[in-house]
Amino acid sequence: MNIALLPGDGIGPEVIAQAVKVVKAVGKKFGHTIHFEEAPVGAAAIDLTGDPYPDSTHEVCLRADSVLFGAIGDPKYDNDPKAKVRPEQGLLRMRQKLGLFANVRPTFTFPSLIHKSPLKLERVEGVDFVFFRELTGGVYFGEPRGRNEQGTKAFDTNVYSKEEITRLARMGFEAAQKRRKLLTCVDKANVLATSRLWRETVQELAPEYPDVKVEYEFVDAVAMRLIQWPKAYDVLITENLFGDILTDEASVISGSMGLMPSASLGTDNKLFEPIHGSYPQAAGKDIANPLATVLSAAMMFDYAFDMKAEAQAITDVVNKSLAEGVVTEDIAEGGKAYKTSEVGDWLA
Amino acid sequence: MNIALLPGDGIGPEVIAQAVKVVKAVGKKFGHTIHFEEAPVGAAAIDLTGDPYPDSTHEVCLRADSVLFGAIGDPKYDNDPKAKVRPEQGLLRMRQKLGLFANVRPTFTFPSLIHKSPLKLERVEGVDFVFFRELTGGVYFGEPRGRNEQGTKAFDTNVYSKEEITRLARMGFEAAQKRRKLLTCVDKANVLATSRLWRETVQELAPEYPDVKVEYEFVDAVAMRLIQWPKAYDVLITENLFGDILTDEASVISGSMGLMPSASLGTDNKLFEPIHGSYPQAAGKDIANPLATVLSAAMMFDYAFDMKAEAQAITDVVNKSLAEGVVTEDIAEGGKAYKTSEVGDWLA
Ligand SMILES: CC(C)[C@H](C(=O)O)[C@@H](O)C(=O)O
Ligand SMILES: CC(C)[C@H](C(=O)O)[C@@H](O)C(=O)O
Repeated sequence: MNIALLPGDGIGPEVIAQAVKVVKAVGKKFGHTIHFEEAPVGAAAIDLTGDPYPDSTHEVCLRADSVLFGAIGDPKYDNDPKAKVRPEQGLLRMRQKLGLFANVRPTFTFPSLIHKSPLKLERVEGVDFVFFRELTGGVYFGEPRGRNEQGTKAFDTNVYSKEEITRLARMGFEAAQKRRKLLTCVDKANVLATSRLWRETVQELAPEYPDVKVEYEFVDAVAMRLIQWPKAYDVLITENLFGDILTDEASVISGSMGLMPSASLGTDNKLFEPIHGSYPQAAGKDIANPLATVLSAAMMFDYAFDMKAEAQAITDVVNKSLAEGVVTEDIAEGGKAYKTSEVGDWLA
Repeated sequence: MNIALLPGDGIGPEVIAQAVKVVKAVGKKFGHTIHFEEAPVGAAAIDLTGDPYPDSTHEVCLRADSVLFGAIGDPKYDNDPKAKVRPEQGLLRMRQKLGLFANVRPTFTFPSLIHKSPLKLERVEGVDFVFFRELTGGVYFGEPRGRNEQGTKAFDTNVYSKEEITRLARMGFEAAQKRRKLLTCVDKANVLATSRLWRETVQELAPEYPDVKVEYEFVDAVAMRLIQWPKAYDVLITENLFGDILTDEASVISGSMGLMPSASLGTDNKLFEPIHGSYPQAAGKDIANPLATVLSAAMMFDYAFDMKAEAQAITDVVNKSLAEGVVTEDIAEGGKAYKTSEVGDWLA
């Protein structure tokens, strides 16, 4: 197996280092030969090459069977609306060039962490849903976008084709078939032409999946129900921008945002990353929680290599670390706070 | 004073009727002559005239000093992506034709209802913020929008001018000056050209309001923090679509969504409405909670007529009804449940 490592910015390098330890240990235990190749991305890549997703990094990703990604983002680029190059451009270009059209974001709870949820226990206990966010279309990439000549007017274009919707929706239907068989299509069909195409396309596909119950909900209603009764959901599918907002909203309800993994899947390439950001305040301090990245590596064994036992071994050891309190300060709660690197060593 | 009444659909007529009783009582107490003129809107107007916002209704609104609006929406139009006329079109046309460019959505808590919040008490206690959502621009109205010839591709356009952003932002700055002096500009400037114009415009205005602290946050981050620590916010300004999603998310955190009023303000016209929807399941049963509409009438006295004492009288009597348990079944909690009309009579 060839795995591309893209540590990125902030705490990215530290958490990726722990995932590498764990992946190596799994390789040893299960007898797999695993090669790693590292490449820069984000602000780190701008500093080195002027480009947040250099061609050389893209080639490393193309050569690999799977990509493990840390995080990108650096505050020095955030409040300058006129900055010419931004780390995020690297992320977007990477998604597009690797064809990673489906962002898979599970939300579930850990019994030992659920008390950290901002929601009351009865609302969040047993929550278990997964978002399929379309990741290479919509207003993130639509043209035209920009300003009028005088610079006094700005515009963006949201655009979706039936094919783009279909391939994402099919992933959602298939996931629902393996889960509780409920699919929620999230759109704004009462306002947007793109949303009406989403709804129409999903309605056309539904008869092919007769065992799946399909619900259609407006994005504003979902933003409410995710807080009021998140247990109502099983699989949700949605467009890029709605997915950006709703998956982040969803990420905080379980109380274990620092542990949530994600996958970004395409036809030829697959990338795995923690959903937490680059957390620059913690960078270099060996205090960041590596569990989300380690669980992303578990998702990698499952989704990229179809190796369920390897994935399960990682999930099991993460649960063990939680049970035994071998955790970083963000979740140590008065118990001993381990360093990022210590948690990684223990897991490995 | 001339007040246009647009009851609309579902429970709209019932809750508007209670607000009218209260407004009449206020008029009597403070010696104002108040005229009401009623007109149809939404599904109710489609059924009557084929048009969800008929010209005759528009004229009633133009003639009035202020508009009191109930709710629109009927499930029979919701799941038909190809429906030619939809109630929501009436709402959007009304906003645009009346120039209601600023939707003002306060979120605050009622001590007697805070235990109904899905959030833990320590997170929500003392929450008090207000959204200024841009309401007549953005992707709701941008052109081009529609389908390609074959119908296999759909597109929408998000567009904002500096003027549109400026007039909304100024309202936010002025509100912040009268409150805790914190303004949060919510955008997606790391991706959208329109958002970069928002951020740039707000940055240019900021020096005119030196007493206001301005923060810039991405929409996905705000979707998280509204749940994690909503007390952090004071005044938030944002574009139409982000505002749609975030104000609905915000509406459920206080536990008193059924009580939240709103104002939609333009240069020449002003409209006041409860934020809850048409709630069709409850229509005609005399069980809907009228307090949000009554509090919208209080906002009307304040924002449309600059009559603070009248507004306060309404707020006071609403608080009294809560304290004495003269409330509808949704918040009666084992106590006696009053009918919609009984609550209205009591308040009046
Ligand atoms: C950094 C930003 C461009 C990105 C997005 O909006 O997609 C991020 O918020 C995410 O969700 O991965
Ligand atoms: C009904 C719909 C068009 C409307 C909107 O999206 O603006 C509603 O959700 C609202 O927020 O008033």
